[in-house]
Amino acid sequence: MGARDTSGVLSPFTFSRRATGEKDVSFKVLYCGICHSDLHMLKNDWGTSTYPLIPGHEIVGVVTEIGSKVENFKVGDKVGVGCMVGSCHSCDNCADNLENYCPKMILTYGAKDLDGTTTYGGYSDIMVADEHFIVRIPDNLPLDVGAPLLCAGITVYSPLKYYGLDKPGMHVGVVGLGGLGHVAVKFAKAMGVKVTVISTSPNKKKEAIEHLGADSFLVSRNQDELQAATSTMDGIIDTVSAPHALPPLIALLKTNGKLVLIGGLEKPLELPVFPLLMGRKIVGGSLIGGMKETQEMINFAAKHNIAADIEVVPIDYVNTAMERLLKTMLDTDLSLILETP
Amino acid sequence: MGARDTSGVLSPFTFSRRATGEKDVSFKVLYCGICHSDLHMLKNDWGTSTYPLIPGHEIVGVVTEIGSKVENFKVGDKVGVGCMVGSCHSCDNCADNLENYCPKMILTYGAKDLDGTTTYGGYSDIMVADEHFIVRIPDNLPLDVGAPLLCAGITVYSPLKYYGLDKPGMHVGVVGLGGLGHVAVKFAKAMGVKVTVISTSPNKKKEAIEHLGADSFLVSRNQDELQAATSTMDGIIDTVSAPHALPPLIALLKTNGKLVLIGGLEKPLELPVFPLLMGRKIVGGSLIGGMKETQEMINFAAKHNIAADIEVVPIDYVNTAMERLLKTMLDTDLSLILETP
Repeated sequence: MGARDTSGVLSPFTFSRRATGEKDVSFKVLYCGICHSDLHMLKNDWGTSTYPLIPGHEIVGVVTEIGSKVENFKVGDKVGVGCMVGSCHSCDNCADNLENYCPKMILTYGAKDLDGTTTYGGYSDIMVADEHFIVRIPDNLPLDVGAPLLCAGITVYSPLKYYGLDKPGMHVGVVGLGGLGHVAVKFAKAMGVKVTVISTSPNKKKEAIEHLGADSFLVSRNQDELQAATSTMDGIIDTVSAPHALPPLIALLKTNGKLVLIGGLEKPLELPVFPLLMGRKIVGGSLIGGMKETQEMINFAAKHNIAADIEVVPIDYVNTAMERLLKTMLDTDLSLILETP
Repeated sequence: MGARDTSGVLSPFTFSRRATGEKDVSFKVLYCGICHSDLHMLKNDWGTSTYPLIPGHEIVGVVTEIGSKVENFKVGDKVGVGCMVGSCHSCDNCADNLENYCPKMILTYGAKDLDGTTTYGGYSDIMVADEHFIVRIPDNLPLDVGAPLLCAGITVYSPLKYYGLDKPGMHVGVVGLGGLGHVAVKFAKAMGVKVTVISTSPNKKKEAIEHLGADSFLVSRNQDELQAATSTMDGIIDTVSAPHALPPLIALLKTNGKLVLIGGLEKPLELPVFPLLMGRKIVGGSLIGGMKETQEMINFAAKHNIAADIEVVPIDYVNTAMERLLKTMLDTDLSLILETP
């Protein structure tokens, strides 16, 4: 399914993938998650889209063919591809297993591939990618609930690890309970961390605590609740991609606390300086993760039975799915999975 | 010398200090640095001042008397007091040697002391403080050039250490070449770090490179110079306390780079989010340092012959000194030292 223009409408689109190269893995796509960024890309919200555009970067399936020099996969393996399919392999970032920060990183769709063609994503029935960018899906992790982890999972797992918010007994806040936030709660809980969900919607409390296992819940507009939680958190994973106030969040942090932004905000936020100084606090960012860490994240998810909350829909439902996603723009709790034919 | 009101004018003021308590160290003040914050406090710029106000928190001298339970000092020792004279000794911050972040930290002047009196600072001839807040000045560090290190020195040393910007071979930027910036260059160079000074004033280049030993110099309004330095720095110590743009600084950072704010900015700054995400960068703060680290900093300075650049003036010059400081508000290169009688 592809988009021909910025209308955002997807329709059947026929194309060929490259033949399986010597280091390539080809697989039949069984599921592909719908990420909020797909919506932005379809409509060219970030000004970087080219058409035809085939979205999808939470792609899972079963290997159908491997190249002669592929070392780690065989036909029949359960595999996935996340947000990227290439990088330079020679810069400092690549050397540090941080292909996600490589200046020449190639996005899974809508980017220029090494051969000059445009990359096409997972709203399709076949995928071909260099084995370096293929993730092995452990047998006990169902493919459908594993797909969104290739984007949402690594996006929350990587900052929890990098910013040292993965130590048992720590207290971490999760702002927003959408596609990113709900898996952030699951990963943090599996790490042994005490989790407080911070949301604008009081009606998410039940989901946060009873379903996701969060330890507590704060309504972000309730001053009394926020006041009572002042200086109690080691870190906060802030998934919100709409403008919002940072000072109330910074106030929740202990000395040396870390506020980590992972939502793709286009407009700048207001940063208060004194509150950072007074507690040696930081505001940091994080963007998906490298391939080595993505595999580690998937293995961790499989070990701890972490699954994205999903709704499986057929491929011809995709335009309706997009409309639903648009309506829940700010704080989505939809993780639709496209069931490919 | 004290101020009676918000006029900012200092005049002779007579007062008594408490008698030397059993854990107190009393010393004759020989020099006291003039910090920019003294100017703000004199004029009640932050709304926290009470009068009479006796400024000064870069205080050095020679011990004249010690209490019966003082363990680490004796009469005749060279000592100093920095920004604080008390803390709770029981919170997590105090337990971590971070008295500077203790919620009950007592500032050296203008704060409420344990006995309910107001603390008076170092523009005076005698100082009395609990030995926990007394710093030993090594014999080879002259008192006059050591005084400003008790505030400016620890303010730059602590973030260089905490944010891991002290590793030989690293590349660190220093924004602003005033009281904080010039010692930041000296400490960073002594740590073996490559230092680039970033300043609005092209005429500071000579001072930065020839006098302070910086490796390079960028004029912050020169787009070509900034462009050429994109993604080259491991961290930046930003000493500027006036509103300024963060995006050009964030662009100078490598992946995982750290922009550390140490200037006391009252108004919020604009924080761009995507640039933080794309390189897992952080913006953090830091405020002076704990007593253990302050002693470590002074010892390091003595070992590496790090001295603040100063101009020694007599105490009755203080009002003129303040006027001069006010005129160089944004990017001062004055580190006046009051020579007390």
